[in-house]
Amino acid sequence: MTIVSHADIEIASQPQIWRQVAEFAPSVFGKLPQKGEKVAVVGCGSSWFMSMAYASLREAAGHGETDVYAGSEFNYDRKYDRVVSISRSGTTTEIVELLGKIKTPSVVLTAIHNSPVEDRATETIIMDFADEKSVLQTRWATAALGLLRAHLGLDLNSIVKDAEEALASDISDLVEVEQISFLGRGWTIGLAHEAALKTRESSQFWAEAYPALDYRHGPLSISQPGRAVWAFGEIPADLVRDIKSTGALFESSTLDPMAHLMRAQRVAIAIAKKRGVDADNPRGLSRSIILDK
Amino acid sequence: MTIVSHADIEIASQPQIWRQVAEFAPSVFGKLPQKGEKVAVVGCGSSWFMSMAYASLREAAGHGETDVYAGSEFNYDRKYDRVVSISRSGTTTEIVELLGKIKTPSVVLTAIHNSPVEDRATETIIMDFADEKSVLQTRWATAALGLLRAHLGLDLNSIVKDAEEALASDISDLVEVEQISFLGRGWTIGLAHEAALKTRESSQFWAEAYPALDYRHGPLSISQPGRAVWAFGEIPADLVRDIKSTGALFESSTLDPMAHLMRAQRVAIAIAKKRGVDADNPRGLSRSIILDK
Repeated sequence: MTIVSHADIEIASQPQIWRQVAEFAPSVFGKLPQKGEKVAVVGCGSSWFMSMAYASLREAAGHGETDVYAGSEFNYDRKYDRVVSISRSGTTTEIVELLGKIKTPSVVLTAIHNSPVEDRATETIIMDFADEKSVLQTRWATAALGLLRAHLGLDLNSIVKDAEEALASDISDLVEVEQISFLGRGWTIGLAHEAALKTRESSQFWAEAYPALDYRHGPLSISQPGRAVWAFGEIPADLVRDIKSTGALFESSTLDPMAHLMRAQRVAIAIAKKRGVDADNPRGLSRSIILDK
Repeated sequence: MTIVSHADIEIASQPQIWRQVAEFAPSVFGKLPQKGEKVAVVGCGSSWFMSMAYASLREAAGHGETDVYAGSEFNYDRKYDRVVSISRSGTTTEIVELLGKIKTPSVVLTAIHNSPVEDRATETIIMDFADEKSVLQTRWATAALGLLRAHLGLDLNSIVKDAEEALASDISDLVEVEQISFLGRGWTIGLAHEAALKTRESSQFWAEAYPALDYRHGPLSISQPGRAVWAFGEIPADLVRDIKSTGALFESSTLDPMAHLMRAQRVAIAIAKKRGVDADNPRGLSRSIILDK
């Protein structure tokens, strides 16, 4: 019998959650950055990687310069029109401190009502319906990115079918590998980092992430039979050839890359189960990362 | 008998190379960005990581906004006063293409005379004395970063003693670990990535790299006895405590972080030797990464 974790349920709920986000999104568009504003996006862990994806998409869509920072590495010397932050728990120390220090208008995406980030941000967008019981973030991360993508013009309903396909697809080959290198280009680099973090934290698995073309500048050395290279979005044909020539399993998809991320979430949980570790409670982590003083 | 690789010799030459860089640097200061200019720094692999370190140092020193990109991920929509690129071989496809496309004044640091990057860049700085025989970059990377640090005001001679200490120091504990997570803050994040790449490419070793405080947002899960966490520069005391509580070996140093990187270079080569792989010729890599069309 397969034990069902909170993460299993939360991963599987994503088609429904994305529909809810699509419906909810227009009600908060007024809190998000206007076209032309210079924006900084900040987050920690999974939220940092979703921030990377959004920053790249926003600037590429012509909405304005958009920088991204890990919460601990914010550049206080640069001037921004608005700071966007993502914090599921609403309590992450780096984000609470950052929002307390800056004078820039800010908006925070969180799953929690009346949190410390809400006290400090100019605007708060609360998506409580996307909150999770697992320490591992899955649907919260895609809900937050989905909201931001909706604001950039994507009809999230258009990729719900991709999400359903990602849930139904076969992952058995990928669960057998001993290592995965995740690759992306542009906005999918953030997804590659998130996929690597998922496998790493759920089951202490060896995973890496890179801009796809930088893979040939070193990381290629670790590729071999029994390992996998996983591309989010399209990568050049000659790079695919080089990957395959190492004997590694090559994973790619024509699904929307955010739906493709759901396959990586499933692989992470499946590897955790195979290894007998509790994916809902990654070793040494808690739901809210609060630093001591 | 220990086999001496090119990389061994090149790593050990760094105190002398840094002295040469200190002497050479003022002759090319006029080619480097002026204070106040908005600059993009680009590179691939090790050169990308040295670019990260320089970009962070330059902006923190008040010399102006400084963005950094992997060569394949350059943002052609942003306007810069100058593009700085690093390319040991002078032939890296991404950098050659990028320099051919942009109209922005550019300067490239390379080890090679009459290369394709020289044809395309506005200015070229050739440090042939720092070139290497090993495919693995060690002294070239620190020579390039050293030149850029000298331009920001560091007297490189002041850290040659640290380089000598890093060479003479004991690394035996670190060679025994099965995994290393490298951490940094600000400019040392680039060094953390370079250290991880060194061990990864020289010996197919499992290594990771993060902004230090993001380590608690997931990567901490993989830390355990038999593995190491390696901090470049100072990190908060409570983070050190959390690292030590996982049972991992904790490595830190009061040496200049660029000298501390030399210890990581030595560990990479030592692990490669222990595993019986040729550190000078990483699997699947060549000195010059030229992509097919």
